[in-house]
Amino acid sequence: MNFIDRLRQAWASQNTLLCVGLDPDPAKLPKHLASASHPIFEFGREIVDATADLVCAFKPQIAYYAAARAEDQLEMTIDHIRRNHPAIPVILDAKRGDIGSTAAMYASEAFNRYQADAVTVNPYLGFDALVPFLNYKDKGVIVLCRTSNPGAQDVQDLKSKFGKLYEIIAAKAASEWNVNGNVLLVVGATYPDELAAIRAIVGDMPILVPGVGAQGGDVAAVLANGATADGTGLIISSSRAVLYASNGTDYAQAARATALKLRDEINSCRKST
Amino acid sequence: MNFIDRLRQAWASQNTLLCVGLDPDPAKLPKHLASASHPIFEFGREIVDATADLVCAFKPQIAYYAAARAEDQLEMTIDHIRRNHPAIPVILDAKRGDIGSTAAMYASEAFNRYQADAVTVNPYLGFDALVPFLNYKDKGVIVLCRTSNPGAQDVQDLKSKFGKLYEIIAAKAASEWNVNGNVLLVVGATYPDELAAIRAIVGDMPILVPGVGAQGGDVAAVLANGATADGTGLIISSSRAVLYASNGTDYAQAARATALKLRDEINSCRKST
Repeated sequence: MNFIDRLRQAWASQNTLLCVGLDPDPAKLPKHLASASHPIFEFGREIVDATADLVCAFKPQIAYYAAARAEDQLEMTIDHIRRNHPAIPVILDAKRGDIGSTAAMYASEAFNRYQADAVTVNPYLGFDALVPFLNYKDKGVIVLCRTSNPGAQDVQDLKSKFGKLYEIIAAKAASEWNVNGNVLLVVGATYPDELAAIRAIVGDMPILVPGVGAQGGDVAAVLANGATADGTGLIISSSRAVLYASNGTDYAQAARATALKLRDEINSCRKST
Repeated sequence: MNFIDRLRQAWASQNTLLCVGLDPDPAKLPKHLASASHPIFEFGREIVDATADLVCAFKPQIAYYAAARAEDQLEMTIDHIRRNHPAIPVILDAKRGDIGSTAAMYASEAFNRYQADAVTVNPYLGFDALVPFLNYKDKGVIVLCRTSNPGAQDVQDLKSKFGKLYEIIAAKAASEWNVNGNVLLVVGATYPDELAAIRAIVGDMPILVPGVGAQGGDVAAVLANGATADGTGLIISSSRAVLYASNGTDYAQAARATALKLRDEINSCRKST
């Protein structure tokens, strides 16, 4: 089963559009984990087990593992999800982008080494730099379109006669780049107007929406502007608000409570469920 | 001493603009290295030692190490360069790009974990996503501008009223983004016309130019269009043509011979040396 089918199945069977992002900042981990042999893995494992029935995907952010010299703990985390929660696809948030021969190595990193079901990529280098990822037909390739950060407009809003850059990326992602039907987009929750514009361009293409929670994105606006007619179409990701709901020994329960509230808030805004 | 000063010193003291890129593809390594305990490191170490007097920088490409689960061998390679060839700066080719909190982790990966002197980054997310890198004032931040691949024009040539996207990136990189004076650009050797346009925009800013060798970039055109008035301003990088000049036990000597020829070809095209 390919990534988008797996995602649709998780949306339906779990009745959730929520994705929990795993951004394990060593400086923010609960103190009692410091003595664990693999504290980053232990932290992620507890978060995963406490929220797995509430999510349609997990999204580990590789930068946090790489900065901590903890690629092994990322492998362990993804392996834990695959073994214990096999219905939940794993999105490796890596935002890779490089020329073809190097892109092939990054694709292998994501899909062979880490066994991710999907990976985020950067479109700046154009189509041929995406092909090595797209060639993994059963995997998802999630292209940055309009990101959640304050400076997103610096480059992504540049306007040509074909529209703004993010609109052009959306149009290419939905047509000429989507040769294997495995392309998705990233659009930040912090920009609901742009999300509506992109939804109008890409039809039912699933969109990964980070930026609710710590970044302040508005859930109701995301659903109103981004959901498809059947009330799905979105992978709404929260990381810090869930992960760091408590920094005590109750962090996993606190994460679950926050995730539950967010899932329910999202579901209450869905037009049809 | 900051990265650009180190680079200028290497240009002068070594009389070379050549950079050797370390893209160790496990499938292409000489067969006799297969039994080594760290074949990727051994390969890179031999290449480094055979070419260190011919280059102004080394540029390891992290994707090749990551795909092979060999981050430790990347650490060993960079450590080897720093200990044995301390005058040669190391550019970590990683093309990172993410929102601020994650970008801070990628900056830490490049500069703290790997102790790189510079890192390549992707400008798609805008200025605030570059700030965590720029804040390392002594390090170089090398922004993708016009890449060497065939599809570079898909996105980078989009034209707005302010010019093409790569021209806008060049202008921002040379002014509003360069708050700490540590920005450089990437421009592919395969596009000499674009290189000339970018040089006209950015003044004396150093430019990393991949794409000579296996990708077919023309050295004379690169120098004519990209060098500054003093015959420097360029980091001209070759990877595959040097690394895989031979796949026998003589690979390091063959790499040296290729690098020597390329350095001399570059120097013969410099207006003043």
